[in-house]
Amino acid sequence: MQTDPKLVALRRGLLEPLVLAAVESQQRYAAEILAALREAGFPAQEGALYPLLSKLRRDGLVHHEWRESPSGPPRKYFSLTDAGRGQLAAFRGYWDELTHVIETIGR
Amino acid sequence: MQTDPKLVALRRGLLEPLVLAAVESQQRYAAEILAALREAGFPAQEGALYPLLSKLRRDGLVHHEWRESPSGPPRKYFSLTDAGRGQLAAFRGYWDELTHVIETIGR
Repeated sequence: MQTDPKLVALRRGLLEPLVLAAVESQQRYAAEILAALREAGFPAQEGALYPLLSKLRRDGLVHHEWRESPSGPPRKYFSLTDAGRGQLAAFRGYWDELTHVIETIGR
Repeated sequence: MQTDPKLVALRRGLLEPLVLAAVESQQRYAAEILAALREAGFPAQEGALYPLLSKLRRDGLVHHEWRESPSGPPRKYFSLTDAGRGQLAAFRGYWDELTHVIETIGR
């Protein structure tokens, strides 16, 4: 993904909604969320994801449940709360609004 | 437009590409650029636009020509340079890439 600082600036503020989106349709544990972000092409850092998950939980946007792992210790599986769904919907609506601005401004 | 700080963060970095887009298809003077941004729903501030136009000119992304005004002093009409067109195309490509990430991440 982009390394031009001007374009990288566009990524600011995107990690949080992308994490919410990553657990929208299925429960995922942290390493799966990270893999989903990277697979989609977003250069997420482990060191940013873990504190963000804690924050999202404190803010009531995600919750988690512990599940046994076939290998190693139990894992926290994250999913959206109703407030998290609301925040994600607000984000998507706003992104569409910005996209509309970008598409119409020069015409 | 949005006032939620989380969503407002998404606007960072957008003013520059939006200004480039505003003078893509037609030459415009500063007040027209500001009006186009606001009409499209983007809350641009005059105090941010003027220094940005100077910077874009120094960076070789826009140029301007003076034209007589039917009322008052002559006006600077801005348009894109080839480098400005390239930068705008890079921005649009990257925005599409981010949109793709947003749309696919949870699926």
